[in-house]
Amino acid sequence: MYRHIVQYYETDKMGITHHSNYVRWMEEARVDFLEKKGWPFARLEEEGIISPVLSVASSYKKPSKFSDKVDIEVSVAEFSGVKLKLVYKMFIGETLICEGESSHCFVNEKGIPIRLKKEFPDFYSMLEEELNK
Amino acid sequence: MYRHIVQYYETDKMGITHHSNYVRWMEEARVDFLEKKGWPFARLEEEGIISPVLSVASSYKKPSKFSDKVDIEVSVAEFSGVKLKLVYKMFIGETLICEGESSHCFVNEKGIPIRLKKEFPDFYSMLEEELNK
Amino acid sequence: MYRHIVQYYETDKMGITHHSNYVRWMEEARVDFLEKKGWPFARLEEEGIISPVLSVASSYKKPSKFSDKVDIEVSVAEFSGVKLKLVYKMFIGETLICEGESSHCFVNEKGIPIRLKKEFPDFYSMLEEELNK
Amino acid sequence: MYRHIVQYYETDKMGITHHSNYVRWMEEARVDFLEKKGWPFARLEEEGIISPVLSVASSYKKPSKFSDKVDIEVSVAEFSGVKLKLVYKMFIGETLICEGESSHCFVNEKGIPIRLKKEFPDFYSMLEEELNK
Repeated sequence: MYRHIVQYYETDKMGITHHSNYVRWMEEARVDFLEKKGWPFARLEEEGIISPVLSVASSYKKPSKFSDKVDIEVSVAEFSGVKLKLVYKMFIGETLICEGESSHCFVNEKGIPIRLKKEFPDFYSMLEEELNK
Repeated sequence: MYRHIVQYYETDKMGITHHSNYVRWMEEARVDFLEKKGWPFARLEEEGIISPVLSVASSYKKPSKFSDKVDIEVSVAEFSGVKLKLVYKMFIGETLICEGESSHCFVNEKGIPIRLKKEFPDFYSMLEEELNK
Repeated sequence: MYRHIVQYYETDKMGITHHSNYVRWMEEARVDFLEKKGWPFARLEEEGIISPVLSVASSYKKPSKFSDKVDIEVSVAEFSGVKLKLVYKMFIGETLICEGESSHCFVNEKGIPIRLKKEFPDFYSMLEEELNK
Repeated sequence: MYRHIVQYYETDKMGITHHSNYVRWMEEARVDFLEKKGWPFARLEEEGIISPVLSVASSYKKPSKFSDKVDIEVSVAEFSGVKLKLVYKMFIGETLICEGESSHCFVNEKGIPIRLKKEFPDFYSMLEEELNK
């Protein structure tokens, strides 16, 4: 679980969190998830693994407000070795406020797709294990 | 067509536009679209029509870079009188770089759903006309 | 001390944190400071104390990068009962990376200046005590 | 004069533009100013001139609101060949709403200070001419 506390500058004139920020929190939670699994961004970068965002989606159930504590759960929904789909569930307390997803591919520094299973078997195994959870 | 010029502060360490900004540009284009159709935000507000975002999605085809001129086309994909779905196509020159969508409902200041056909027939007609384009 | 971890979306194409974000971190640290002193935003709001930002300034000593842990120290530099000036020192480890300041006044919900000493003596005393530290 | 239209996502729960955005608008206006003077960012980059922000300051006179048209005037306040200080005046119509300033130095891609007068006499002359306006 990753916790984001809603900042004042994330609110808008409706008095609630502006919807674009949830996409940023998904990134925060994704970075935290990978770090907890032993793959902090610095390691990915050193190994030369770049993971562009192919798509995002976000579905808003309830608003959040300034200073709310938002807990974000990340899980692997699809993983083929070439593409990865993560899903996000965001809660305030027990209440689901937002569901999101993001799709990613993996390329090297030249922009060429990486075959994770062959080139980075440890990273591949971690993601496959998460998929099967 | 709405034009957004990519700002320096919208780029990230990959050297390209951070993906979260496209969701903000969808809002910019939506505001512009409604204004051009005779329904600037100020008028919606005066009439007491609030239109929360229910969901957004964004699919990235090509990156954009600082100072790129991004042209955004908005169209009505679904409209029932209760819910509205807009789709967005973003171009640099002729090249499609991003497709997006957003879903909205309509509520009054008390948060109660508005039946547009009955209560705001002009607004309803405009959206239905756009749907049938 | 308030800690902000630099987010990916806060970086720019130079590969470092975009300078505008430090102004946001000053707000984060200010909110945290007031909370720790017993005046969380919710309490200020309940009491009807609004504290607009009159000015900000930020001086950059060293860049910060994605995932850096930035520790922010807030202190009261000037306080007259009518105006408040806070200063901020931001560190990565022992290294000072940024100095900032913000000025504020205090108004009620009608926008009329509040005389803190008379109307909110507890809040006044806390700020004066911090000034004399 | 550079014009920025206030976006919905730039507002905060006070119903006005969040103060951090003015620092971003200063960057927008600066980029536009340099482009109009014949030095678009792309040219600076090609020539290998990097211009980090050393400090910013912003003083708020009046709030701005969603959809306000903010006109920003940039001028050179100090220029020594080594350091540059720009000042910004922001208006809604005739009303001054914000004054800002930013300081910059000039370095090459290795981070070594550039002596503009010697190495980039055209850029130097343009800035000196602006200073004497």
